[in-house]
Amino acid sequence: MSKHSVEHASFIIERHYDFSPTVVFKAFSDPAHKRKWFVDGEGWTTDSYESDFRVGGFERSRFRFGDGPPMGNDTVYLDIVPDRRIVFAYSMLMGDTPFSASLATIEFLPDGNGTKLTYTEQAAFLDGKDQVKDREEGCRGLFEMLATYLDSAAKQA
Amino acid sequence: MSKHSVEHASFIIERHYDFSPTVVFKAFSDPAHKRKWFVDGEGWTTDSYESDFRVGGFERSRFRFGDGPPMGNDTVYLDIVPDRRIVFAYSMLMGDTPFSASLATIEFLPDGNGTKLTYTEQAAFLDGKDQVKDREEGCRGLFEMLATYLDSAAKQA
Repeated sequence: MSKHSVEHASFIIERHYDFSPTVVFKAFSDPAHKRKWFVDGEGWTTDSYESDFRVGGFERSRFRFGDGPPMGNDTVYLDIVPDRRIVFAYSMLMGDTPFSASLATIEFLPDGNGTKLTYTEQAAFLDGKDQVKDREEGCRGLFEMLATYLDSAAKQA
Repeated sequence: MSKHSVEHASFIIERHYDFSPTVVFKAFSDPAHKRKWFVDGEGWTTDSYESDFRVGGFERSRFRFGDGPPMGNDTVYLDIVPDRRIVFAYSMLMGDTPFSASLATIEFLPDGNGTKLTYTEQAAFLDGKDQVKDREEGCRGLFEMLATYLDSAAKQA
């Protein structure tokens, strides 16, 4: 990899949730909900989290895995259709340096009594520090965390 | 097209400029320079333009073509490597409503005595209101405007 390489790639993840689009959408739009499945994962330390869920608003988190280096996620919302669609750009940071930038589209569609979620990520991996295979695997893990969170929240309700 | 469709697509534009990466980069990084070729085109009325060229900063413009409707471009910078690379996300608006969201990467590489510019756009076209063919054509027009501007600025220097 040259010092300032860029690798462009994209992937799509589809999955079903046994909850309505309104409930699944809220797990993204409500910062208190989102933090629980998206940020505060087992083994991760959250140094900061702030979210301003509106078009032009930022969501910024800073975190570490175990004794690992400080990392970050800076998200900016580009399009929001309540219960239906979220489009956002996000960069992943090691310290203060971005190592990827992505455009992400999440579509929520009724699917029987639940929701079909379609996630499309179009990414630029910077300077050889990440790759699409690992990113897709990481995202699949997050959507699994969301399923666990929705099940758990429903049982507590 | 359904009411809330999304079409994902990408394209690449490569072109040579007879000026150094430093000069070509400055036409993007300096708001006074960028406005001249990117915003104030013939036939267009610029209602507002503001730019904050830094990671996390926005560039926002509002404009109309002839007697057409008010349109907008909201850009947010995600990664900047001086004279080498700019990564940004941008949405195009009709009134206040986004009709596309894109991730764009511009790479500047020395090419003889000039610069090879590589532009990669990964886009989501929203609700059937634009398409990749027209977007690519529009971008090619802007990069031609940049060539004209650089030639003109060099003659005035």
